[in-house]
Amino acid sequence: MMRKFLAEFMGTFMLVFLGTGAVTVAKGDTLTIGLAFGLAITVSAYAFGGISGGHFNPAVSTAMLINRRMSVSDYVSYVIAQILGAIVASAFVRLFVGALGLPTGSLGQTDFSKINAGMAFLVEVVVTFLFLMVILNVTSKDHDNGDFAGITIGVTLAFLIIVALNLTGGSLNPARSIGPALFAGGTALSHLWVYIVAPLVGAALAAFTARLMGSED
Amino acid sequence: MMRKFLAEFMGTFMLVFLGTGAVTVAKGDTLTIGLAFGLAITVSAYAFGGISGGHFNPAVSTAMLINRRMSVSDYVSYVIAQILGAIVASAFVRLFVGALGLPTGSLGQTDFSKINAGMAFLVEVVVTFLFLMVILNVTSKDHDNGDFAGITIGVTLAFLIIVALNLTGGSLNPARSIGPALFAGGTALSHLWVYIVAPLVGAALAAFTARLMGSED
Amino acid sequence: MMRKFLAEFMGTFMLVFLGTGAVTVAKGDTLTIGLAFGLAITVSAYAFGGISGGHFNPAVSTAMLINRRMSVSDYVSYVIAQILGAIVASAFVRLFVGALGLPTGSLGQTDFSKINAGMAFLVEVVVTFLFLMVILNVTSKDHDNGDFAGITIGVTLAFLIIVALNLTGGSLNPARSIGPALFAGGTALSHLWVYIVAPLVGAALAAFTARLMGSED
Amino acid sequence: MMRKFLAEFMGTFMLVFLGTGAVTVAKGDTLTIGLAFGLAITVSAYAFGGISGGHFNPAVSTAMLINRRMSVSDYVSYVIAQILGAIVASAFVRLFVGALGLPTGSLGQTDFSKINAGMAFLVEVVVTFLFLMVILNVTSKDHDNGDFAGITIGVTLAFLIIVALNLTGGSLNPARSIGPALFAGGTALSHLWVYIVAPLVGAALAAFTARLMGSED
Repeated sequence: MMRKFLAEFMGTFMLVFLGTGAVTVAKGDTLTIGLAFGLAITVSAYAFGGISGGHFNPAVSTAMLINRRMSVSDYVSYVIAQILGAIVASAFVRLFVGALGLPTGSLGQTDFSKINAGMAFLVEVVVTFLFLMVILNVTSKDHDNGDFAGITIGVTLAFLIIVALNLTGGSLNPARSIGPALFAGGTALSHLWVYIVAPLVGAALAAFTARLMGSED
Repeated sequence: MMRKFLAEFMGTFMLVFLGTGAVTVAKGDTLTIGLAFGLAITVSAYAFGGISGGHFNPAVSTAMLINRRMSVSDYVSYVIAQILGAIVASAFVRLFVGALGLPTGSLGQTDFSKINAGMAFLVEVVVTFLFLMVILNVTSKDHDNGDFAGITIGVTLAFLIIVALNLTGGSLNPARSIGPALFAGGTALSHLWVYIVAPLVGAALAAFTARLMGSED
Repeated sequence: MMRKFLAEFMGTFMLVFLGTGAVTVAKGDTLTIGLAFGLAITVSAYAFGGISGGHFNPAVSTAMLINRRMSVSDYVSYVIAQILGAIVASAFVRLFVGALGLPTGSLGQTDFSKINAGMAFLVEVVVTFLFLMVILNVTSKDHDNGDFAGITIGVTLAFLIIVALNLTGGSLNPARSIGPALFAGGTALSHLWVYIVAPLVGAALAAFTARLMGSED
Repeated sequence: MMRKFLAEFMGTFMLVFLGTGAVTVAKGDTLTIGLAFGLAITVSAYAFGGISGGHFNPAVSTAMLINRRMSVSDYVSYVIAQILGAIVASAFVRLFVGALGLPTGSLGQTDFSKINAGMAFLVEVVVTFLFLMVILNVTSKDHDNGDFAGITIGVTLAFLIIVALNLTGGSLNPARSIGPALFAGGTALSHLWVYIVAPLVGAALAAFTARLMGSED
C-alpha cells in the first residue's frame, strides 16, 4: 500500500514539476510544454507504473474504479497521493519562479479567459474522454501492446494538451490543476471546479464507452 | 464488425482532431503540425489497431483491398467509418475555433495556392506512394518489426506531411481532407477531388510495387 | 539481390527526400532538419532493413565490408543503389522547389563557407566515426538491443547532424551529398570530394576501433 | 575492464559532444538542447550500456555504489573514464567553436547568474534526486521495462534539464560540468564545486529513498 502511494505521489510530482516547470521556468513553446506534460507520464509509467499501475491522475483512477479495475480503498489512497504530489511539485516550482524574480502569479495554472465556463467544461470533457479511450484500450487484456502503453498514453496526452492549451490550458487531470491553483490563487482557484468536475465526467463517459467497445471484457 | 467500425472511427477522429487542432487552435509550427498528424496515427494504432488493423485512411484500406489483405465488405465499412470520424472531428474543431473568435474559414483544410492542380496531384501521389511502401513493408509477414510498426508508420507520416505542407498541405488521406473541407468550403471543396483521387492512385501504385518487392508473399 | 537493391534504393531515397525536403520545401528549423534526416533512417530501417540490413549510406557499407559483415558483390550493389536513390530523391526535390518558385540553387546540398576544407574534412571524419561506433555496437551480436537499433541509429544521426549543421551541413554519407550536388552544382560539386572521402575515413577508423572494443567478435 | 572503461568514455563523450555542441555550434532552442543531452544518454545506453551498464555520470555511479550494484574498483575506473570522456568532448567543441569564430568563452558550460549558490545547489540536488529515482526504479529487478529503460532515462534527463536550464544550466552530472569548465574558465570554474557536490548529494538521497521504496530488494 505504501509503495503504491509513493509511486502515485512520484509520478504526479513528475507531471506537475516537468509540465508547469516547462511553462514557467523554461518558458517553452507549445511543443515543449505538451511534450513535458505527456512524456512525464511516459517516463513515470515505466519507472513507477510497475508498482501502482501508473495513473497519476484522479480522472484515470475514477475510470478504473468505475470499470472495477481497482478497489475503493486503493482509489482513495491513489487520489490523495496524486493531489499531494501535485501540491509539493507546485511548491518547488513556486520556489524556483520566485528565485528567478519571475511573477509568482504565473505558476503554470490552468485557466480560461477567451471562452466561457460552459465551453471550457466541454473542452475538458472531450479531451479527457479521448485520453481515457486511448488508455482503456491500450491497457485492455485483448491487446498485446503492453510495452508501448507508456509511450502511447504520454504522447496522446502531449498532443491533446497542445490542442487544448489556448482553450483551457489543457488539464485533463484534477490533481494537475489543484497544485498550481493553490499557490496562484485568483481565477485559477475560482475556476478550479471546472478542472475537477469536467475531467471526471469525461473519464466516466469513456469508462462506459469502452465497455460498449468491448475493451473491458 | 461494429468494434472494427468504432476503432476506425476513433483513429481517424484522433488524426483529424489532433492534426487540424494543432494547425488551427494551437497555431503550431511545422514540426508540431507534422508530429500531431503522425503521432495521432501511432497512438491510435497501439490503442485501436489491435481491433481493426489501424488503417484510419481510405488510401491505406484501398492498398490493403488491392493486395487482398481485407474483404470488400470490411473495406466499405472502414471507409464510411473513416469519413464519419473525420467529419465529426472537424465539427469539434469548428466549434472550438469559433469559440476562440478565430476565422472559421481556416479549419486546417488541405489546399494549394502556389502550385497548379497537376503538380498538387503529383505531390500527393508521390508522398502517399512512399507512405504506403513503408506501411506495406513494415507490416509484411517476413518482417519481425510488428511492435515498432505503429511508431514507424506515424513518424513516416509526420515527415512526409512536413515536406508536403507548403505544397499541398500534406493530406495523403481522402478522409482527412473531406472533414475540414465540408466546413471550410471554398477552394478546399472545389480542389477536394485532388485529395480523393491522388492518394488512391499513390496507394494503388504502392500496392503493385510492394508485390514486385515481394513483401506481399 | 534485386530485393536488397530496391531496399537500399528506397531507404536512401527516403533519407534524401525527407531530409533535404525539410531543409528546402519546408524551411524547417534545426531540430526539424536533424530529425527529418535521422528518423528517415529509423523508419526505413524498420520498413526495409529486414531485407538489406538497412545501410542507406556508402560509409556504413564500407565499415561493414571492412569488418566482413557483407560480401564485396553486395557492397558494389548497395553503393550503386544508394547513390541512385539519392539522385532520384534530389530530382523530386528539385522539381518541387522549382514549382514553388524557390531558388533552384538551394537544394539542401552540403557545403562549407565559414571553415576551411581541412576543418570540414575533420568534422565529417569525427561525426561519421561516432555514428559508426554507435551502429557497430548496437548491432553487434553480444548486445540484446536489436529491436531498438533502428531508433538508436536514427536519433544518433539526428543529433550529430544538428551539431555539424553550421560547420559542414552534416553529411556523414557520400550518397546524401552526391544527390543534391549534381543538381545544385557550384561549390557543392567542387567540395564534393570532402563529403565522399571524409565519411569513408571516419567509417574505416570506426571499423578498426570497434574491433579493439570487441564488438565484432 | 578495458571494454567497460571505453564504453563509459564513449557514452560520456557523446553526452557532452551532442549536448554542448547543440548549445554552442548549433545554437539550438530549449527543446533541442534538452533532447540533445537526454537522447545522447538514450542512444549510448543502447549502444554501449550492454558493456558497462551505461552510467556516463559520476552521480549515477555513486548511487549504484551506495546500493551495492557495482564494485569500488569499477567505480573508480568508471568515474575516471567519464571525466576523461567529457574533457575530450569539450576539446572538440572548443576546436569547432574556434573554427567558426564564435566566442571561445561560451562552450556550453554550466553556471548560474540569476540565483545564488545556495539556490543553485538546491536545484541540482532536486533534479538529480528525481533523475536517480527514475533510474533506480526503471532498472530495478522487479520491473519488466528493461528494454525501455534507455528511452525512459534519456527522456527524463531531457525534461529535467529543460526545467533547470534557466536556473543552473541543468547539469545533474559532475563530468558534464568539469569538461567545459576546464576550457571556459571564469565563474564556470569557481562555481564548479556546486556541480560536483550537489549531484552527488542528490544521488545519495535517491539511493536511500529507493531502498525505502523497495526497488533495491
